[in-house]
Amino acid sequence: MTTPSHLEYPPELSSEEERYLLSTLKDWSIAHGLAVRPAPSFVPTAEDPSGVLATTAPVTLFPSLFPRVCFEEGLGIQKAYNKLYSAIARDEKWLQGIVEELIDIDEFTGKLWQTHLAVKKEGYVQDLSLGLFRSDYMVHIDPSSSNSSPGLKQVEFNTIASSFGGLSSRVSTLHKYLLAVGAYPASATTMIKADALRQSKSASSLAHGLAAAHKAYGLSRTKRPLCVLFIVQDPERNVFDQRHLEYALLEECGVRSFRLPFQETLLHTSQDSDRTLLYTPPSSSSTTYEVTTIYFRAGYSPDDYPREDEWNARLHLEKSRAIKCPSILTHLAGCKKVQQVLATPHSPHLKRFLPDESVASRVLATFAPIYPLDESEAGKEAKKLAADPVSAVRYVLKPQREGGGNNIYRKSIPPFLESLPAAQCPAYILMEMIEPPPLRNAILRNGELHKGGVIGELGVYGVCLWKNGSDGGDTGEILQNFEAGYLLRTKGDQSEEGGVAAGFGAVDSCCLVD
Amino acid sequence: MTTPSHLEYPPELSSEEERYLLSTLKDWSIAHGLAVRPAPSFVPTAEDPSGVLATTAPVTLFPSLFPRVCFEEGLGIQKAYNKLYSAIARDEKWLQGIVEELIDIDEFTGKLWQTHLAVKKEGYVQDLSLGLFRSDYMVHIDPSSSNSSPGLKQVEFNTIASSFGGLSSRVSTLHKYLLAVGAYPASATTMIKADALRQSKSASSLAHGLAAAHKAYGLSRTKRPLCVLFIVQDPERNVFDQRHLEYALLEECGVRSFRLPFQETLLHTSQDSDRTLLYTPPSSSSTTYEVTTIYFRAGYSPDDYPREDEWNARLHLEKSRAIKCPSILTHLAGCKKVQQVLATPHSPHLKRFLPDESVASRVLATFAPIYPLDESEAGKEAKKLAADPVSAVRYVLKPQREGGGNNIYRKSIPPFLESLPAAQCPAYILMEMIEPPPLRNAILRNGELHKGGVIGELGVYGVCLWKNGSDGGDTGEILQNFEAGYLLRTKGDQSEEGGVAAGFGAVDSCCLVD
Repeated sequence: MTTPSHLEYPPELSSEEERYLLSTLKDWSIAHGLAVRPAPSFVPTAEDPSGVLATTAPVTLFPSLFPRVCFEEGLGIQKAYNKLYSAIARDEKWLQGIVEELIDIDEFTGKLWQTHLAVKKEGYVQDLSLGLFRSDYMVHIDPSSSNSSPGLKQVEFNTIASSFGGLSSRVSTLHKYLLAVGAYPASATTMIKADALRQSKSASSLAHGLAAAHKAYGLSRTKRPLCVLFIVQDPERNVFDQRHLEYALLEECGVRSFRLPFQETLLHTSQDSDRTLLYTPPSSSSTTYEVTTIYFRAGYSPDDYPREDEWNARLHLEKSRAIKCPSILTHLAGCKKVQQVLATPHSPHLKRFLPDESVASRVLATFAPIYPLDESEAGKEAKKLAADPVSAVRYVLKPQREGGGNNIYRKSIPPFLESLPAAQCPAYILMEMIEPPPLRNAILRNGELHKGGVIGELGVYGVCLWKNGSDGGDTGEILQNFEAGYLLRTKGDQSEEGGVAAGFGAVDSCCLVD
Repeated sequence: MTTPSHLEYPPELSSEEERYLLSTLKDWSIAHGLAVRPAPSFVPTAEDPSGVLATTAPVTLFPSLFPRVCFEEGLGIQKAYNKLYSAIARDEKWLQGIVEELIDIDEFTGKLWQTHLAVKKEGYVQDLSLGLFRSDYMVHIDPSSSNSSPGLKQVEFNTIASSFGGLSSRVSTLHKYLLAVGAYPASATTMIKADALRQSKSASSLAHGLAAAHKAYGLSRTKRPLCVLFIVQDPERNVFDQRHLEYALLEECGVRSFRLPFQETLLHTSQDSDRTLLYTPPSSSSTTYEVTTIYFRAGYSPDDYPREDEWNARLHLEKSRAIKCPSILTHLAGCKKVQQVLATPHSPHLKRFLPDESVASRVLATFAPIYPLDESEAGKEAKKLAADPVSAVRYVLKPQREGGGNNIYRKSIPPFLESLPAAQCPAYILMEMIEPPPLRNAILRNGELHKGGVIGELGVYGVCLWKNGSDGGDTGEILQNFEAGYLLRTKGDQSEEGGVAAGFGAVDSCCLVD
């Protein structure tokens, strides 16, 4: 990844070449729904009160170089990851141990767990569970070795609201189109060539995942029409990403779905006596639908729960007979503490969930060492590493809960730790920094072009539909398990935050290199 | 068309229904490229200097009611219209008679004719010609009869730059989608139902027309890659309409095309010694393409010719071996004077071009009476009708040249005529007003919703590829002739101008009624 040709990538463009590439890209993206609603900082709400404007989603001009072996390994092990996380989600007792370590320090995790317990008390009535997962990786080159081959290291595993599956499919089509119409200079086409570009099938595959749950739900118990319910944030700038899944669900699978803002859940849904979930669209109050599957694109962050009403809504949905994507236990399986205990060196946990050693070892190879900040031996060592400015530069400190935006990097760790009350320490994990190879690209964002060094993050989507065991332990049956396409998110390497949604990155696609 | 149920159409929406319909429509339109670049009055250029913003194209919320018999007749006679106008374009002598009547009063027509003569002097080297036509109609109900059935009356026939074929396909898909997801209230679905909605296949069909010309051009004479050249205005707010044809041309037909701003023609094209047209994209100066087909989406209005350079460019293109869509003679065949002489009562001209009487009579039935304002008997009578405020209210005065925006309606005609120098009169025609049935709809435009009475204009696209006779007369051979989808443009009935591009209308689709 650091041969001269890679450092010359992407090619320099003449002003005419850049003009052609940009105008081709800007028109194609809008013509194909590779779009977002503009941020208020770009178009003030007062200038477009009805919200009809859209803009090209933040995208890279070129597909970023990505080692073929890493790409194939990431996609290849997704089914193992699906199996792993569905097994974790089925193992309530094991999860309880995890949650108990967090419950006093992370109120959000505590509330989720209480919600689970409240449902458990009355008894779960739906034994099917759907995961639309995304496992995020970076390419890692060991800085201590001068000639090491690149490997894939996991950044995080998302079990709720894994986003960009809709736009990712389109950006890979965009880059293929730009190649087809000669928007990349001839000098670059030794690297950017049809068989190096990888189409992401995420939009279609995730829709098929939702459709599989919808079908597995079975016939209506109330003789009503059936639907899938997208629980969403409102407003949502990234709405087209979600809409593309809706459209694929209808066009490819014939399944109706509705969007329901999370905060309106209790207004428009109700339960039958047997906890069948009913949805009456406010736009057509004479028709009530029976909900087969709840797809959460909201509810993953404490910000989504400003009132007790939202917790009541989550409880109400979790209690219902609809299949949840994800259930609360699956949501909890995605907390960083789980990633940490799996990735703590010599952890016994991985083999508990993946007894097949050859499978487990492939998964293990993608873990970056992660340490708890607790009173264990590993925790004590981690605190030493984190407090020392010399060693701290190889680490990142991450809060246990989902979301991003609060990571503490490298030399900022020691002063942060010093200011942190000791009791708060276990709310964080310490992770060895992944050292990605140097790459360059150009990002179009809000009409502005940013060129320079970048870091790419590969997300691999996975669909898993399973039946929970009746005993609540780690039994059960997997009904569907497939890899569901990929996302490449690319950010400027001066930024140390990663989410495109958070405002720092762009959607990208892979140009594989050997 | 005036039964009570029609007057109750479209249905009143509750605020919840309207909210659902609008949000569904706004997201779908952007996700599917049913979009335009925003007008500077909506988003000032300074706020989006790089031009990344887009907005929903002006569209109707509901498909407008349209009499099934009229719709089918319009599509059914398009092949006859294609034949008619290709025959006119082949008959240089006949066209010369038309042009000679205009040449002193319409400088633009004169310049086009001189350009043709200049090419003729050197000899045309391409005997193939392509028309992507659009015949525009309104539904007419004879106001003098209390129970007459609706008929189709032609507004104009476009032989150059017939627009909205790209967006029209999408708006009919949009209306079908809105029906499928329950965005139309149940009360309306007795009228809006799947078998009443008509999908327009215009984007694909027009692309296939371009591809037919591209193929008929034959092998490269210069061993260079072949391409189609879109000659465009720059900037172009309606760019997605054109891009959809480009995408269909590449994806469905495998044909490369480029967009070239008309004013840059001479910079980037050249001719070989045998007048093969060569195009070197400024973005990749090492590759020169041989142009098979020139598709004019500019050059139809005098505004496109600010300098003599543009006339030189038109001459340069017309002289070349590339197939023109349209040629200058085909462009001239679309002038209003031609429509007028065909539609002048008892005109001998129609049967000259359409000898088959049963075909000619169907075409004739779509003509609204049109009078010249010249020194003929019909012209003298027309001037009387136009000068009298009582009779003038049934007429519209139109300039001979293309474009729109300058029509004089009804009671405005007498004072306008009075102010017009007599010598200018023949530059105009007098046309009986078409009296459309009362209709209602709602239009979303720049984020604003406009509800009320509307007028619809049906455009039927036609593709015709023909070989000109070697004698320059009305001989030759038609190689391709097909109907190519439709456009429904709908405008508020308080406005008397029709073009969506001109800022007053919306793209619509047909909901057929018996």
